[in-house]
Amino acid sequence: MKRTIAVILSFVALSMGVQSQTINRREIRFPDINGYKTLKCDFHIHTVFSNGLVWPTVRVEEAWMEGLDAIAFTDHLEYHTFDKDVVYDDNRATEVAQPMADLYGMILIRGTEITRQKPLGHFNAIFTTDNNAIRVSDSIQSIAIANQQHAFVSWNHPGENNGNWADVQEQLFKQGQFQGIEVANHNTYFPEVQQWCMDKKLTMMGTSDVHNPITFDYDFAHGEHRTMTLVFAKEKSSEAIRDALLNQRTAVYWKNVLIGKEEFLSAIYNQSVELPSVTMQFKKNERNKAFLFFKNNSDFPFELTLKNEAKELSIPKKIILKGNITAVAIEFNTSVSGEKTITIPFEVTNLLVQPNKGMPSEFNLKINVQ
Amino acid sequence: MKRTIAVILSFVALSMGVQSQTINRREIRFPDINGYKTLKCDFHIHTVFSNGLVWPTVRVEEAWMEGLDAIAFTDHLEYHTFDKDVVYDDNRATEVAQPMADLYGMILIRGTEITRQKPLGHFNAIFTTDNNAIRVSDSIQSIAIANQQHAFVSWNHPGENNGNWADVQEQLFKQGQFQGIEVANHNTYFPEVQQWCMDKKLTMMGTSDVHNPITFDYDFAHGEHRTMTLVFAKEKSSEAIRDALLNQRTAVYWKNVLIGKEEFLSAIYNQSVELPSVTMQFKKNERNKAFLFFKNNSDFPFELTLKNEAKELSIPKKIILKGNITAVAIEFNTSVSGEKTITIPFEVTNLLVQPNKGMPSEFNLKINVQ
Amino acid sequence: MKRTIAVILSFVALSMGVQSQTINRREIRFPDINGYKTLKCDFHIHTVFSNGLVWPTVRVEEAWMEGLDAIAFTDHLEYHTFDKDVVYDDNRATEVAQPMADLYGMILIRGTEITRQKPLGHFNAIFTTDNNAIRVSDSIQSIAIANQQHAFVSWNHPGENNGNWADVQEQLFKQGQFQGIEVANHNTYFPEVQQWCMDKKLTMMGTSDVHNPITFDYDFAHGEHRTMTLVFAKEKSSEAIRDALLNQRTAVYWKNVLIGKEEFLSAIYNQSVELPSVTMQFKKNERNKAFLFFKNNSDFPFELTLKNEAKELSIPKKIILKGNITAVAIEFNTSVSGEKTITIPFEVTNLLVQPNKGMPSEFNLKINVQ
Amino acid sequence: MKRTIAVILSFVALSMGVQSQTINRREIRFPDINGYKTLKCDFHIHTVFSNGLVWPTVRVEEAWMEGLDAIAFTDHLEYHTFDKDVVYDDNRATEVAQPMADLYGMILIRGTEITRQKPLGHFNAIFTTDNNAIRVSDSIQSIAIANQQHAFVSWNHPGENNGNWADVQEQLFKQGQFQGIEVANHNTYFPEVQQWCMDKKLTMMGTSDVHNPITFDYDFAHGEHRTMTLVFAKEKSSEAIRDALLNQRTAVYWKNVLIGKEEFLSAIYNQSVELPSVTMQFKKNERNKAFLFFKNNSDFPFELTLKNEAKELSIPKKIILKGNITAVAIEFNTSVSGEKTITIPFEVTNLLVQPNKGMPSEFNLKINVQ
Repeated sequence: MKRTIAVILSFVALSMGVQSQTINRREIRFPDINGYKTLKCDFHIHTVFSNGLVWPTVRVEEAWMEGLDAIAFTDHLEYHTFDKDVVYDDNRATEVAQPMADLYGMILIRGTEITRQKPLGHFNAIFTTDNNAIRVSDSIQSIAIANQQHAFVSWNHPGENNGNWADVQEQLFKQGQFQGIEVANHNTYFPEVQQWCMDKKLTMMGTSDVHNPITFDYDFAHGEHRTMTLVFAKEKSSEAIRDALLNQRTAVYWKNVLIGKEEFLSAIYNQSVELPSVTMQFKKNERNKAFLFFKNNSDFPFELTLKNEAKELSIPKKIILKGNITAVAIEFNTSVSGEKTITIPFEVTNLLVQPNKGMPSEFNLKINVQ
Repeated sequence: MKRTIAVILSFVALSMGVQSQTINRREIRFPDINGYKTLKCDFHIHTVFSNGLVWPTVRVEEAWMEGLDAIAFTDHLEYHTFDKDVVYDDNRATEVAQPMADLYGMILIRGTEITRQKPLGHFNAIFTTDNNAIRVSDSIQSIAIANQQHAFVSWNHPGENNGNWADVQEQLFKQGQFQGIEVANHNTYFPEVQQWCMDKKLTMMGTSDVHNPITFDYDFAHGEHRTMTLVFAKEKSSEAIRDALLNQRTAVYWKNVLIGKEEFLSAIYNQSVELPSVTMQFKKNERNKAFLFFKNNSDFPFELTLKNEAKELSIPKKIILKGNITAVAIEFNTSVSGEKTITIPFEVTNLLVQPNKGMPSEFNLKINVQ
Repeated sequence: MKRTIAVILSFVALSMGVQSQTINRREIRFPDINGYKTLKCDFHIHTVFSNGLVWPTVRVEEAWMEGLDAIAFTDHLEYHTFDKDVVYDDNRATEVAQPMADLYGMILIRGTEITRQKPLGHFNAIFTTDNNAIRVSDSIQSIAIANQQHAFVSWNHPGENNGNWADVQEQLFKQGQFQGIEVANHNTYFPEVQQWCMDKKLTMMGTSDVHNPITFDYDFAHGEHRTMTLVFAKEKSSEAIRDALLNQRTAVYWKNVLIGKEEFLSAIYNQSVELPSVTMQFKKNERNKAFLFFKNNSDFPFELTLKNEAKELSIPKKIILKGNITAVAIEFNTSVSGEKTITIPFEVTNLLVQPNKGMPSEFNLKINVQ
Repeated sequence: MKRTIAVILSFVALSMGVQSQTINRREIRFPDINGYKTLKCDFHIHTVFSNGLVWPTVRVEEAWMEGLDAIAFTDHLEYHTFDKDVVYDDNRATEVAQPMADLYGMILIRGTEITRQKPLGHFNAIFTTDNNAIRVSDSIQSIAIANQQHAFVSWNHPGENNGNWADVQEQLFKQGQFQGIEVANHNTYFPEVQQWCMDKKLTMMGTSDVHNPITFDYDFAHGEHRTMTLVFAKEKSSEAIRDALLNQRTAVYWKNVLIGKEEFLSAIYNQSVELPSVTMQFKKNERNKAFLFFKNNSDFPFELTLKNEAKELSIPKKIILKGNITAVAIEFNTSVSGEKTITIPFEVTNLLVQPNKGMPSEFNLKINVQ
């Protein structure tokens, strides 16, 4: 192990040279909620130790720069594309990158992908203790060994080319052999999987499934982010992440959409967005113009669709809260004076608390007309 | 006045239409320091009421979107380029934009530019009460009237085509007829003016002097910002700004450089940048690699030039803290065990506490070698 | 007139100063087609002479920087929001900006917006000779005067809050009093209007209807463009534009979508996109992988939806040609040897040759299997 | 070899998946000059087969997307950082990536880096036939073997930590054992090396020396480009590149600066930049304002420093030609009528034809004053 460290250190020294002695992290701002820390995690990542195209340490640096807190390597047990050149050992990716993860304070979790034909499809096991022991030809047994290692097992991208909920999944589910499913994998969201997770109390996962250098897949300069899992954990630690995963305390962060249980998504909305509760002063029988100022303390661009039931009020139907502060122009014209509270029901269309359905909410406007 | 409001409101309604009912503000993050609020201000702005190219209300919206707290209009008394089409009244720009400023909560200060030939050059007066009264042909008298209105008077972009400190400035200075000078105007920084301000206790001003739509002059998408004045004020109010200006509590924010007194710039640095004070654990006689993590809570990209006097330590010479967190790679190799504190002197090269000279500082590394 | 020039020149000199003596144009690359030059035009623009927020010259510079060839000012005859400060003359905007247009070689067309209540709605007249003469209270007469001035008259943003094809439009249409309609106005596309234009041989118009500084409305740094009309003209001249408009030789360029007749859109596609017609060499019974290289010589991101009817071929369903060259990965696996041509039908989904319907086309792959 | 292809193909299929079946290339526009094609090349690149951090095929895709035509892998013979996991064979990187290069039409050149202590330092050999045969302990012999393989040998980043021109270099030079030197390596330009190349007829090289995923080192979204060599070759082929390198037909493209012989850089300037040669019409005794329109057909931002010797003319001192077309504001005021040609000498400050010295040139303004 000591030798590995030395190897890593020397390559870093050589590779980073004078020019790259600094590296920047851009935090992803999400609020901590309900007494938990909101950790940004990606648990489906490939390296040259299966069919990914970068050295494992690169995954640590990519994730650190993007603002992630934890990653898991899940190289395919069965696809060692580079076996002519890269030594066959399914535990090496994690071992190789651990010193780099330690340098950055990144939580690195050992994992693997069990990659079989339909109807089983692909499963990820993370928190494994020995990936090599899981590489057996019988798929069911392979998953069983992962579970014996106390791994957290999840079903990857069902629907796509990975089949649907079939007998084999039903059987595995009844035996408690898997605990989560990917609701989003890279570019694709699976609404029906979200329903399965809700019905069966399975953990919702969102992952990048990255094989390329990450910048091949996401245009960060234009506001894209990798698909990931928000984990609501008691603290920033490997054990706390496992605890959160086992208790379905996750949300999926996919293409500027959050997918998950309403208890989490509403907390994220409420902790992020402030609407000052001042009473607005208007003049009777005039076309009053004013701004509502929404302050968004997160990096998430909440999209609101408003339902306006007050005749005297003109407000936009759609608002996107993508700056620190968004001014929303309203108009108010009434012939009735006095104080009044107007309730505006709205839906946050990119907080999916149900399959393809946004989160309902409302806010109140206090108005004083003279 | 009421009529003006109505006019403004209707044009806004028409001009913003369905498509532009929301508008986003990007806060400029600077810490509040020394018990003062750090306000972002631009006190040299032109509109169509002299030779600027936009309607006054545009200046309010531009400034709000860019994260400013206060602006002053300073149209030329003598250059009414559009007098065939725009009515001649040097108080109108502010009157016209005030309702828009009120809607946004932007502090709008009445001002004017007294624009004369060399050797006098151009002077700005802000907090004026009646610009029209200042428009007299005798330059000295014009400045005197501004002072009688209790305006804050500053000399604009000297050096450039506006001459140097001559008899007329010396005379005005002795009479207390001006209180500030522009140390930076749009693209240009005047180091000698910084020295004058330090020697003569004049307030350092930084301004955009914008005539075009602001996006013609600054490429915000590539990290540029308008030249502005940071005002350290007791509160966010017009009066508090005046008080700060009269007491030289400003710094100039120009092309990602801050120019000002060390008491302010060091406070900004210290309030913005955190370097965790943990003790780093190293192994004797090994090439130890580690990262220093600088957390920068502001939007300002501090540039550090480090002086390393410790032989056993390799650190980069230059660091730019432009992300939320910057990891700086260091190496440590020593044959001596035990605890040790290493002091690293450095200069923040873009905090100019003297003309063209960065701010000296230092930090300590606590190291434990076993 | 000479005086106007002098006025303009001096303000430019003052306003541009040392810092802005250069200004950059980004050409919008569209091919010339069918013997015509493809001119980029915006015929619906507001200035401070109605309820726009910038001085007319700004519109010339904005348009030049964005790569436009021609613009028309269409200030409202009826909405002079700034009449307390700006002199009332509906011909002034064009007069004021003409010297600037001359400096840049921008075609500037006099126009006006006749802005009435429903059911008539808003109409634009461009190539007018005297806007003031058109400002009469009778709407129908107003349009008639514009036609007497040999103006090109078009109906603005119907559908929105401007009503539908009603008796008054039918009557005007029968009399030949208007020749075009806006198919897209700023953010909004009107599919039903496209159908009207096709059925009634009216010219399709796309316009920005800009009131704000243009950068308030479009995020150019992130690839947005103003809504505009592509005019297929015999030459770059005002007369040639009028001729093209009168003969329905236009297409609408809206949010990276082109809307228009198939004869124009197919020509744009064919002149822009090259697919090398080499014969691809493949091996029998192997999983052959290759790239199709699409070269796109325009700045328009063609979006193709492919229909693959060849079993042995795997190709992606959707391609966006947004770089200079796009490599599209294909796979070919067959047990039959010999030469073969495979036809791939596709639809260019953002070339709308019918309301909300893309343009059908096809390409051929020549394949040689050994 | 066939097996290698199969391996490559399958990983591509897996790694690219549905989401990444297309990939975009952004051409770097430089004109072809003096009868030669201008090829964009990077001959100093590392992979996991020494201490680089990506699989060799990634280097092909990175280069293709960035618009390069040819690359060489130059993994260190002596630093196999990952030898515990990656099989030791100095020819493998090229073999592994060749099928990918073929798919993209990228010229891939076998090479290696001979990495020794000072005073020798590091040398690159490209166009080698067997890298393993070059890995001998005697440095001089190692370079000799590369030459026996008819490699093109160049000295890497001298100056930095690689020493200066010493006895060993003098001896190798006299024996013709190396033919080029790096004038720029990643972030660093070596002016003294440019002088050496000019004096000794050695080929000027510019390289990225990339170890990281390329996007770690360059911010492409903000206009950065990798350091590279422009090769002026008879055609786009490996042999033509070798011919050009052996005949010093290169220029170095580093941080938006070109470094090379005047014959090449002046041709690039003249082929790229057009200044219309129209006669400008001006009025006597007036402050005439006009624009010079520079059309830049390349992607290179030429920076011009103008010397104005004509009193009647005001032109800016500094111009950056960074758009397709740049309008440069000038003013002309004279009391003398008639036709006149004014010569404006200028220096292109980022075309370095001498160490740290720009290229002198001039243009003519034809002026007619009435």
